[in-house]
Parts: sequence; structure tokens; C-alpha cells
Amino acid sequence: MNDPKIWKELATQLRVDSIRSTTAAGSGHPTSSMSAADLMAVLLASHLRYDVANPRDLRNDRLIFSKGHAAPLLYAVLKAAGAISDADLMSLRKRGSRIQGHPSPVLPFVEVATGSLGQGLATAVGMALAAKRFDATDARFWVLLGDSEMAEGSVYESFEAGAFYGLSRIIAILDMNRLGQRGPTMLGWDGEAYAGRARAFGWDAQVIDGHDPAAVHAAYAAAENGSRPTLIVARTKKGAGVSFLEDRDGWHGKALSPEEEAKALAELGWKTGASSRVVKPAAPPAAKAPAPEATGKLELPTYKLGSEVATRGAFGDALAALGTANPRVVAIDGEVSNSTYTERFDKAHPQRFFEMYIAEQQMVSAAVGMQALGWTPFAATFAAFFTRGFDQIRMASISNATLNLVGSHAGVSIGEDGPSQMALEDLAMMRAIHGSVVLYPCCGNATAKLVVEMAGRRGIQYLRATREKTKVLYAPGEPFPIGGSKVLRRSAQDRVAVVAAGITVHEALKAHEELGRAGVAVRVIDLYSVKPVDQATLQEAARECPGGFVVVEDHHPEGGLADAVAEAFASTAAPPIRRLAVRTMPGSATPAEQLADAGIDARAIADAVRALR
Amino acid sequence: MNDPKIWKELATQLRVDSIRSTTAAGSGHPTSSMSAADLMAVLLASHLRYDVANPRDLRNDRLIFSKGHAAPLLYAVLKAAGAISDADLMSLRKRGSRIQGHPSPVLPFVEVATGSLGQGLATAVGMALAAKRFDATDARFWVLLGDSEMAEGSVYESFEAGAFYGLSRIIAILDMNRLGQRGPTMLGWDGEAYAGRARAFGWDAQVIDGHDPAAVHAAYAAAENGSRPTLIVARTKKGAGVSFLEDRDGWHGKALSPEEEAKALAELGWKTGASSRVVKPAAPPAAKAPAPEATGKLELPTYKLGSEVATRGAFGDALAALGTANPRVVAIDGEVSNSTYTERFDKAHPQRFFEMYIAEQQMVSAAVGMQALGWTPFAATFAAFFTRGFDQIRMASISNATLNLVGSHAGVSIGEDGPSQMALEDLAMMRAIHGSVVLYPCCGNATAKLVVEMAGRRGIQYLRATREKTKVLYAPGEPFPIGGSKVLRRSAQDRVAVVAAGITVHEALKAHEELGRAGVAVRVIDLYSVKPVDQATLQEAARECPGGFVVVEDHHPEGGLADAVAEAFASTAAPPIRRLAVRTMPGSATPAEQLADAGIDARAIADAVRALR
Repeated sequence: MNDPKIWKELATQLRVDSIRSTTAAGSGHPTSSMSAADLMAVLLASHLRYDVANPRDLRNDRLIFSKGHAAPLLYAVLKAAGAISDADLMSLRKRGSRIQGHPSPVLPFVEVATGSLGQGLATAVGMALAAKRFDATDARFWVLLGDSEMAEGSVYESFEAGAFYGLSRIIAILDMNRLGQRGPTMLGWDGEAYAGRARAFGWDAQVIDGHDPAAVHAAYAAAENGSRPTLIVARTKKGAGVSFLEDRDGWHGKALSPEEEAKALAELGWKTGASSRVVKPAAPPAAKAPAPEATGKLELPTYKLGSEVATRGAFGDALAALGTANPRVVAIDGEVSNSTYTERFDKAHPQRFFEMYIAEQQMVSAAVGMQALGWTPFAATFAAFFTRGFDQIRMASISNATLNLVGSHAGVSIGEDGPSQMALEDLAMMRAIHGSVVLYPCCGNATAKLVVEMAGRRGIQYLRATREKTKVLYAPGEPFPIGGSKVLRRSAQDRVAVVAAGITVHEALKAHEELGRAGVAVRVIDLYSVKPVDQATLQEAARECPGGFVVVEDHHPEGGLADAVAEAFASTAAPPIRRLAVRTMPGSATPAEQLADAGIDARAIADAVRALR
Repeated sequence: MNDPKIWKELATQLRVDSIRSTTAAGSGHPTSSMSAADLMAVLLASHLRYDVANPRDLRNDRLIFSKGHAAPLLYAVLKAAGAISDADLMSLRKRGSRIQGHPSPVLPFVEVATGSLGQGLATAVGMALAAKRFDATDARFWVLLGDSEMAEGSVYESFEAGAFYGLSRIIAILDMNRLGQRGPTMLGWDGEAYAGRARAFGWDAQVIDGHDPAAVHAAYAAAENGSRPTLIVARTKKGAGVSFLEDRDGWHGKALSPEEEAKALAELGWKTGASSRVVKPAAPPAAKAPAPEATGKLELPTYKLGSEVATRGAFGDALAALGTANPRVVAIDGEVSNSTYTERFDKAHPQRFFEMYIAEQQMVSAAVGMQALGWTPFAATFAAFFTRGFDQIRMASISNATLNLVGSHAGVSIGEDGPSQMALEDLAMMRAIHGSVVLYPCCGNATAKLVVEMAGRRGIQYLRATREKTKVLYAPGEPFPIGGSKVLRRSAQDRVAVVAAGITVHEALKAHEELGRAGVAVRVIDLYSVKPVDQATLQEAARECPGGFVVVEDHHPEGGLADAVAEAFASTAAPPIRRLAVRTMPGSATPAEQLADAGIDARAIADAVRALR
């Protein structure tokens, strides 16, 4: 419907609805919505191909509001498309409503949550990448960007990846309304500056008047036929369409009062009770579903009891095996695949491996985008560098995403490289993510089993892997359920329970041996599932070991294993929990020296047990 | 010393030393060092102005190895400059040595730790910004960048800020050696692509042959006289100078064996025991120290008992007052100063306020850079968005930085905006930082006092602030020592201790009242210092309250208040700790509804107490 009259009417309706819903809510971002109303009107009427009845259809175009605070506009668009009702729209920001303050997948037309800026384009990169490699569709990925978020570095990671992978189906629309939350943006209305950046990264870019529907229409058409990803820089006015809001400072994130609303709606020519136009978007073009890759047999790697293997290596082997058994599994790495061993997956399944280079934010967001289209991503880098993507992981949990993250080189035991490469906060970070699973295996066979467990579960899973080779403690067949633990040593005489995970399990076993020679019996628990934690086994140990617990972890004292153990005693009294953890700033040293210096080696464990019993 | 012979000899020496030290260590990154040897030789001999005897002199140029893994080259440069000895150099990566695997401030010539990529330029921005505003020096800020790290979005945040603030003293040298850890970089040797990006962000850029000392010299000279920050893209070869290393894949992060070393050193013309050249860098030009701003009197804001004030507002007021009393205090914000209320500091001390726009990574790194030059930064944004800078905060702790971070809008109590804007993981994140202090005041007067406490302390401090107005509970004079707590309600009949902080203190008091009417006495503890935690008060409560604890927090259950409380019982048995925290994914709702839905309001507390006692 390339009818200028419809574009104009629709844009007015989107403005009206953005004002109505926010005034009813008493809060929200009407002016940030109004600036992009013409952009969205033309998109809906003349370009978007979307089956409202089947929002998750892979043939559909995707529309991501990276400027999530313009949610009122998104809802106005969805209403105009016939996807939600006016009553839905007017429930904005109300308790229990799916029409939330920022877009969230509780609403089926939203696939990824936004609201933390600079992430929408990155998830679109993930989607477009998966679509390009796997799906024979013509789907386009429309992203509405705000100009304030162009300050986020993550946006440029997406520009890089978009150009590198030739994601010409991405069309980013920059709503350059000049005003941020507290005043002008860095670049104001310098559209050529934004366009120049995009071009420098290898994108096509156009600068247009975002309130001229014909110009918008032409820009979209050009972008649809481009051979590269496109940034359309649309010069707009915040609050456009209403004289007392337009390009005015001080109106960010403010709803109009009922009196102001009446004035604004009158100016827009809207009458109470006027019916709304419904503009059904075009149907997505037919596409032949790609032939699914054949499903092979799961042949997990096995390691001989007592042999030495790094858990990161076992992860790489297991992931490659999993990839054969599950053709939906994809792997994403941050340019360290020869350290995380995702290179083994790459070798076995090169079509399903994605190199995201040293851009961890984009790496996490790419995984979020891919899972939204039905893939099962494993994203891996050094555990320390997942801190770079913490906001993206946090947002992924709001997106209700299914994400498998694997961090290698955890803890001081990496040795000489020193603290910049050591993850000592990752357990705290990942435990705090809503609904997360946190795993920390100590041996190759345990790792392999846990990788399979992860892939079979929804939500956000994290596996912590060790750089150093460690002894294989469990037979290949041994099950490792999430939420479980292993009691490696026990006797009726146990005085103290030593709780360890990963590298410290091996130290705990050495301490057990040393103490045993001195006639001191201790229990050794491998708490490979840090979250959820095995409450029953810990409570049993508390009852049976009168001296209490020694918890030993290659992590800072806060937020890790010891906190997880303490959590198991929420409703009952807890035994004394002596915490051995990394309390000083490590330097360079050998792995063994690091464990000793941090006071988390066998000797430190034995000393702590002797002090407790 | 613009002598090509010296440049050449010095470059060879730097290569030799990079090989020697890493072979002695048995690990490290010789080839990543060798590619930049000519770049550093010319810099040291002919451009760097640096007093080795006074490394922290503000007049000195700064040299930051953003590619921290090239640390062997840095140490070779320091040895050539006469700053460290050959014995120092050869102690690389050994236990106890200051010559660590990646640069760390345990060595006085290093001001900020690097090793997590993409952060060196950002700290240079902070330094250059402070130097430009405050110090009448000619200091230049040289940053050695790797090409792999050009994939990090944080680098582009620094390009933005460098251009926006006209930081022409920054000279970034990109060691474009084409090879990353596992293979070629995204752009390979496409120097114009990098230069084009820099220019698009408003920088000057040159592309040169990084192994041609004369070209390097000319490029430095041009950059020194430029009116904008400069990126020098130097085309280099990894492992340059040794035939079997040069531009070869598979040599990243590998030390040479003694045999390979002998072969390499022979090729470089070095003989065992040959003496090294010492090239003292030029002295920094004289500079008049700027007149320090006058120190005023500390007149903290005070709030009337029982009145209502948002702790974020009290933070803004207190920071402005502190700025008057302490002329070294600076404030940095991420374009939300009207939410964090740093705008009040801006109004009082505009010269000491820095707007970093929505670029939280750069914001944190700018603070790190400024504190390295002796300033006392307070950096503020929404608490949720500090997750964006977690890696920078982690690295700041390795830098031994003194940093004050203030996160507003914490928890579900922000209300309608929904989960993307809610910090529910921030306590976990900040507790896990080595040596950190984590504060969470519940009232305006407490906040004001704690802001002063923060400023008086070294290390990384975090204050969590609430969006909503809350009742003023403490008199203005009340002291709030770090590590303390306040017992707000107590009696000899207390059955249960309710531990709260921030917004939940007010809910705990309401619950106390409700329970009191039913004849149930509870203790109420305001645990405003989450780390360090007040062990004594908690242990006393455990002894005196037979029913144990109810801990109530506006945070996910992991890593926050409850974990901190549990930690207080490391050496003694802990009472049952019933944890009330945010266990579901919030949507939009009013603040009161959010607290109720999360089960952390007065009613939930009262119910939990009744269940426990």
C-alpha cells in the first residue's frame, strides 16, 4: 500500500496511540516513539512482510526495537497490524500485562527483550547470520535504532560482523531525533557523521528526512535491493507532530498529563472513540524449508580413568559429538577456538561454526539471535571475558533465551598469564542470572555428560572449564544430572566435609589422602552443579560431619561455591563453613604455585580441616 | 636521537629481549612483541618524554600497552630505558616477580593493568581528558593497540570520546600484524579500512610501514603536531626479524624452545652476554603546576527525620557538597545525570563533570584513567548498566584503582519500566570484585555520610541507590562506618532477626510494626554495608534470636545480601537464614506491586517470620 495518504494517516494513528497508552500508564516514552512514527508507518504499510497469525514463522521479516524505550510505538504498530487490540495497547505498563514498559517476549511478537541500549542490532546479526547460512528464506531484519545508543561500542561490533558476513538483509533505521535523556546527543543532527561511520565499516548508508514518507519509502526500497547491510539515518524530531513536544528538551521519558494529552490529540486531529485503521502487513514470500541436516548418533568422547585431560578439551570433543547427534547445535567463539577447543566442533561441522572475533558482546547477542530462530547455540570464550557480555547475558534472561555459555581458563590455576586472564568472578556473575544453571566439572567424562545435559535444557546454562589437564575421576558411563553432586570419599568416621568443584576437587582428594594417613577422615564432595545445588547431599553431610564444611574454590570468596553451599541451608541451621578461596590479587606463577599462594591447594585444605575438627 | 642506526639496533635489542625473557619463562608472547619492536624503538629513542626516576610525574608522557600480551616488549623497552635491569626482565612470569605475564601496576612504570583487550585506549581517554582540563602539561598519551582488539566495541567508544573532547594528545599506534590468536584478523592488512574507521569518528589517521623506522618517526612527528587524536596504522609482521617466525600462523602465545631461541638470536646477530644499549628517554618539558582549586568546607546535605527523599537524590546532593570540600573529586556519568543526580555536581562544579554519553565501558575506563593521575572519580549510571562495564571494573581491581561507582534505579522497586532497567545482579557483581566495598543505604542522611566514607578510601567502592523516595530514618549526625550496620529495632524478646538493606529496610520496619501488633518481637537490622559485612552484629543477632534470620533483598537470591549474611558465619554454625529475594522475572507494575509480587514486601516478611519462629 504505497499510498501517501495511508502513510500519513497511519503515522498520525501511531502518534496518537503512543500518547494515549503512555498517558493511561502515567509513564513511558511518548516523544521517543513519535519521532519514529513515519518510519514505522511506511514500514508497516509498504515493506514489512509478516504473518501476524504466525509470528515465529521463519519466513517473516523481523522488526527489532533496539531503542526499546520506544515500546509504545511498537505496540501502536502491532495494534495497527491487527496483532493486539486497543485494550491490550491501553494496558501498557500495568501489572500482569504483556504490554510492558520495554519490549519483552512475554508478548509473542517480540522475540528478544530490549531496553538496555545497543543490543538490538547485535541480535539481528545473530538472526541474519543463521538465516543466511541455514534458512532458504527472504526474511529481512529491520532494526530501529536510537541515536543515543550509537554511543555504545556494541553497535560497532555489529557493524563489523554485519559487513564481514555480508548480512545484506539487515536494514537498520536510525531515528536521529537529536535528543537523549538529558540533552543533545554527541552528534546531534549530523547524519553524515553516522553514515560515514557505517560506510567505514562496510555498510551502505543513506541520510534522509525521517518525516518524509516518500523519502523513507525510497530508502527502504533501495536498502531491500542492496548487496550490503544498510543503515538509514533518518533525521527526525523528538515528539514530532505536536507543537509543544516537537524537538523540545525536557520531555524524555515523560507521559503527558490528561490535559496535555487532550491538547496533543486535538492537534493531531484525533477524536475520542475514533476507529483505528488496521493495515495488515504483506505476507512473507513462500520459501522452501531447507533440508534438515541428518541426525547422527551421539557418540560422546570417553576418557580412561586416571588419564589426564583438560575439561576444556573434553568440552570441545563433546560439543563436536553433540553436533553430530543434534543438527540444531551451533557454536560461536570469540577468536579463541584453539583455547576453548570449539575448533573441534568447527572441524566437524564447519557450517555450524561462527567466528565472532574478539567481540564478546556481539558473540553473546549473536547466540541470543540464533536461539530465537530455533538454534541451540554454545558460545565459548575465556571465562574472564564473559564479563564483557554480562549485560547481554542479563538481557538474554529477560528474553527467556536458551543459551549455553562455556568459559575456559577459569581461576588462578591458569598460571603464568596472570590475573587479567583469570576468571575469579564468573560464578558470582552467572549464579546471579535469573534461572541460570552453573556447572563446574572436574574431569573429562563429567564434562562430556554435562555438555549433553546443557543442550537438553531451556534457559541459560554456564559451564566453567579449566585450562590445565586434570585426572579423569569418573567412568565414562557415570551420569551427571544437573542439580546433583558426587560424594567421592566418605566413611562413617568423617569429621569434616570438604566441598570442591573443578580443579579443587583434585586438591581435595590429595588432602583426603594426606589427612587419612594422619587418621583424620574427611568426606569429599564434588559439587559440579553449583546452581542448582544438591541440597540433600549437603544437608546429609552437615548431619554426618560434626566439624562442618571446608569449601574450597578457585574463585573470589563471594558469590561462588561457598555461597552456593550456604544457600543449601536456607531453612535449617548451617554448619560452620570454612571458606578457602582466592583472597589476594594473584600475579604470575605456575599453576601449582598459584593454588598454593591462593591457599586453595591440598595443603591449605588439610590445614583448614585440622583447624575445624 | 633521530639516528637510524640507533633505531635499528634498539629494535633488534627489543626483539632479542622479547625472545630471551619468554624462553626463560617458558611461555608468553614473543611474536606479538616482535611485530611492534620498530614502533617502540623509534618511540623510545626519539619521541617519548619520560622521567624514569619519577614515573608518576604528571609531566611524563604515558605509554599504555593496550595489547597487554605484548608485555615482553614493554619490559624490553623499560630495560632499554634504564628503568629495570636485565635480571628483572629475565624474571618474567616467575612467582613473586613484578614482571608479570601481562602489565600490572605492581611495577611502578605501569599505571593501569592491561591484558583484557580493548581497554588501553579507553583509560588513555580518561587520562588525556583529565590532563586537558586540569593539568598544564604537554604530556602525550601513547597507546599501543593490537589489530585483534580492534574488534572490541569499546575501542570505538574511545574513538568517539577522543574526538568529541578533542584529545589531540592521544596517539594510538595500531600494530597491524594481521594475525590473531587462531588465525587472520577480520581485516588482515587492510590498513585503509582501519584508518577509514578512525577518520569517520573524527580522528586523524595514517597508514605506514611499521618496520620502516623513518616512516614511523615521521608519523609520530605528524601526530605530535596534529590538532586531533591520531591513529597510526602500522603494517607489521608478527614475529618480524626472525625468518621462521615472521608472518607465520601457529606462533601466537608461544615461547621459543632454547634451541629455537639460539637460532633466532643468531639470526638477529645477538651474542650471549652482549651488553645492551640504554637509551634514556627525553625529559618531559617543564610545566607550571596548575593552581589547585580552593578547598571549601564540607557541608553535607541534611534531611529531616521522617521526610521523604530518594537516596539517588541524596547522592547527588552529597557529591556536590563533597566536590566543594575536595577539589580532587570528579564526576562521570553515562548520559543519565538527571536520573543519577550527578547533574547537581555538574551544576556546582562544571569543570569537574564529564559526560561520557551512553558508553558505560568508556565511562568506567575514563574513571580508571583519571584516578591514575590522582583524581577521585565518582562514576554513575543506572546500576543495571554497570554490567556493561564489568570487565573494566574487574581490570580496575587488577590496576589497584581507586574507583567510586554509584548505581541508581536498583531492584524491582523502580516499577513500571520493567526488568531491562532493574539491577538485580549488581550486588553479586560488585561483591565478587577483589577488595571491593559494597554499600546500600536506605535513607538520605545515610547516603550522604557514605558518599564521604567512599571518597576517603582506596580501592573500588560501590553504592547502590534507589529510584523511589524513601523515608529518612537517621538523624543527620549519625555515623555510617564502612563495615557497620544499624540495629533499628531490638528487644530482649526478639524471636527472629530481619536483615534488610535499602528499600527493604522500610518494608522490614512495616513488618516489625505489623508483627508487634500480633505480639511477635523481631529485630530489624539495616545492613547498609553489604561488604565488608558486620559480622559482630549478625553473630549477636544469631545468638539472641532463636528463630534465626529472615534476609530480604531487592536482588536475585544469589550473591547479594543473603550470601553476605551467610558469609558472616564462616567459623561458627549459622542460624537458619530464610531468603526473601526476587525469584521470578518481573514485568511492569507499580513499585509497591513489584515488591509484593517479588515477595519482598512487609507482608512477605511478616509471613516468613511467622513461618520461622
